[in-house]
Amino acid sequence: MNQPLPADQRAMLRRVRPVQLIFLGFLLVTAAGTGLLLLPAATAPGGQTDFIHALFTATSALCVTGLTVVDTGSHFSVFGQVVILVLIQLGGFGVMTFATVVGLMVLGRLSLRSKLLAATEAKSLGLADLRSLILGIIKISLVIEAVLAVILSLRLHLGYDMSLGDAIWHGSFHAVSAFNNAGFALYSDSMMGFVGDPVIGLPLCAAIILGGLGFPVIMQLRRRFRTPRLWSMHTRIVVWATSVLLVLGTGMILALEWSNPATLGPMSWPEKLLASFFQSVQTRTAGFNSVDISAMKPTTWLGMDVLMFIGGAPAGTAGGIKVTTVAVLLFIVFTELRGDAAVNIFGKRLSRAVHRQAIAVVLLAGSLVVVVTGALMHLSGLPLDQVLFETVSAFSTVGLSTGITAELPMLGQLMLVLLMFIGRVGPITFASALALRERRTLYELPKERPIIG
Amino acid sequence: MNQPLPADQRAMLRRVRPVQLIFLGFLLVTAAGTGLLLLPAATAPGGQTDFIHALFTATSALCVTGLTVVDTGSHFSVFGQVVILVLIQLGGFGVMTFATVVGLMVLGRLSLRSKLLAATEAKSLGLADLRSLILGIIKISLVIEAVLAVILSLRLHLGYDMSLGDAIWHGSFHAVSAFNNAGFALYSDSMMGFVGDPVIGLPLCAAIILGGLGFPVIMQLRRRFRTPRLWSMHTRIVVWATSVLLVLGTGMILALEWSNPATLGPMSWPEKLLASFFQSVQTRTAGFNSVDISAMKPTTWLGMDVLMFIGGAPAGTAGGIKVTTVAVLLFIVFTELRGDAAVNIFGKRLSRAVHRQAIAVVLLAGSLVVVVTGALMHLSGLPLDQVLFETVSAFSTVGLSTGITAELPMLGQLMLVLLMFIGRVGPITFASALALRERRTLYELPKERPIIG
Ligand SMILES: [K+]
Ligand SMILES: [K+]
Repeated sequence: MNQPLPADQRAMLRRVRPVQLIFLGFLLVTAAGTGLLLLPAATAPGGQTDFIHALFTATSALCVTGLTVVDTGSHFSVFGQVVILVLIQLGGFGVMTFATVVGLMVLGRLSLRSKLLAATEAKSLGLADLRSLILGIIKISLVIEAVLAVILSLRLHLGYDMSLGDAIWHGSFHAVSAFNNAGFALYSDSMMGFVGDPVIGLPLCAAIILGGLGFPVIMQLRRRFRTPRLWSMHTRIVVWATSVLLVLGTGMILALEWSNPATLGPMSWPEKLLASFFQSVQTRTAGFNSVDISAMKPTTWLGMDVLMFIGGAPAGTAGGIKVTTVAVLLFIVFTELRGDAAVNIFGKRLSRAVHRQAIAVVLLAGSLVVVVTGALMHLSGLPLDQVLFETVSAFSTVGLSTGITAELPMLGQLMLVLLMFIGRVGPITFASALALRERRTLYELPKERPIIG
Repeated sequence: MNQPLPADQRAMLRRVRPVQLIFLGFLLVTAAGTGLLLLPAATAPGGQTDFIHALFTATSALCVTGLTVVDTGSHFSVFGQVVILVLIQLGGFGVMTFATVVGLMVLGRLSLRSKLLAATEAKSLGLADLRSLILGIIKISLVIEAVLAVILSLRLHLGYDMSLGDAIWHGSFHAVSAFNNAGFALYSDSMMGFVGDPVIGLPLCAAIILGGLGFPVIMQLRRRFRTPRLWSMHTRIVVWATSVLLVLGTGMILALEWSNPATLGPMSWPEKLLASFFQSVQTRTAGFNSVDISAMKPTTWLGMDVLMFIGGAPAGTAGGIKVTTVAVLLFIVFTELRGDAAVNIFGKRLSRAVHRQAIAVVLLAGSLVVVVTGALMHLSGLPLDQVLFETVSAFSTVGLSTGITAELPMLGQLMLVLLMFIGRVGPITFASALALRERRTLYELPKERPIIG
């Protein structure tokens, strides 16, 4: 039997809503991370980290963005790199956990299988459920990261003449960075040294894709991999959209960069294919690069802007407006074109509340990116193509750059800090707030419409 | 009593739907216009017009876009300019009439005041209604154009030492070009010679704004100007959005270009204000310019891209995705942020069918602009900021350019021809097709939802 809470505790719960917790948590951990990175021990001997660079790096790590204003491998000491690694792990784990809990509440409340009576109770998931969920997420994360770390460490030790200690450290760092879609690398040229090595590239991609699918999908795939007809609408959308976007991205990069002498041009065709696939995976939204982004064609940047803006799946480590949002919007457009009355996806009708939510996410995100892009252009005098790439990369927590991050004026870097934060914490806070809220309808007004288009 | 139509006529009516008529009409008139502009008599003595330039000019005139690949004033003879003028008038009039008829059908069918029983008959408006509507549109257009032509002609004759005959021709040409939001000018520097002259600038702006409000709004304002509480939701949205966007556009251009030595910099502040207001009006989507667009800051271009993409009101002479579409989306976002169950605008509930229509219009338009921008960048090697400006200008039938139109390779110009055509005919055909279609709902599937954001 549930004991009613005392009045003061209930009042506190009303004030601190679950969606505010993640916001406050991120803010506190960013502050702590900035403090730690400012310690002299965090910087390599002879170096010094100023406040804005420490803040930028801590935010970029916690938000698993991967944009950098100093070279991670040479500027920071191993202690500094460990701080970055911990921030990445906390950031990836924090969002994955929070989004999964909220997502399951929403899905549970709205799915056919949930009992209608349990709808309100579902909002306060039992502590036992929560504990097993968190343990599940930790287990999955650690298993995938460990497997990848072993593969990378072995390869670095055996194939690249790295000492075993160094190989284990590098393998572990990049494994955590990959699964959490953080994109931080210990090499100043990111993964360009491994562009032709599938033993490094493909396992990295696998971990990134898994992280980007999100925990609910990983769990369902684990249990029901061979019975796709039992998958939820959410899982189907995520798996389909991820596959389609990976293929489209690979094709686009391959076609546009095929003969670019500074990127794919000099490679053999299997290398071109590997590099294109690798970059296609990174663009949503891991952020390593194995070819020189600054040397790519502006047209490729534009295509990558679109892929970065879309990002990965909710309740995972990827950023962006999320593939489910885009899928919902596309299905709405198809429904309009076909003239159907309801939006049906994979044999289920799409809840109408989701339509408006998807519009809100896209419009707010799009407006934010355009406004910040304008402001950064005004501040820096840099051209639209590079600034837009940088802004989308920061908002979607991708971390790829055409090379202008460190050049930006301080105010511009601060704007990116804010954008990374909003890009990581905003969509989930926003979507959760919308999804968890009770809607009150007292009465309906008479209906009218304007002319559209 | 209605006589049933013979079977063959009914079959024909099923085949040629009203929304296909405007498409075919535009195609035929474009072909005829191209043919006429190719005649030697259409070109100034000594000149010659090749096919692609004639096609581009005819499309640009009929679609009231105003992008040019040759100088209208010096390249064409007076006969050629008359052809352009007739195309502009046909294009403006055609879309205004068609969109008004369709819009009134939709509004009539869905408004509270319409009888439910008359719903199906409303689809075939009586011929008498149609005739009086078309006469009304002709009358309004000619009256506004005539008033503007008189003002411009007098000013050109008295203030600029132009002979009376020339002044009347120039006044009439620019009056028609302005009310139809076409933006064709007989001067190679568009309206830059009149940047400080409010007697030219403000009447031009007034006619452009009226044309951009759309015929249904002009009619309602004429009858009920002093009783805004009787205005329809459509009229309120259009009047509010137009005012807000004009003020925002003026403020943005003023702020960003204030000290740009190549644009507003050398002007006195009343001139700066006039030039900013003028350019703000032109951006949605008339297309004259009184300052040098190519010398503006790229940040200003980006802001103008947004204004151009939005455009004016439906059932008028302006282009773009339309202010009503944007207003509907914004109201949806506000509704989500406030947590209301229904989208209420000005005391009325917004029809849910409109939500999906607005999303479809924005997504299709946005995708088209991004894809064509990428293709044009790839073809021309020009930077994103200029190409995006050009593409949005063509799609939204604005006609402003950073000066790259004539430089583009032939294939690029052909793509712009297609984009101008789709930009003008597409949204109305599309929106009409959606709005007029009967929706059949045989059964509803069980409901489910993915996680968003
Ligand atoms: K990243
Ligand atoms: K125009």
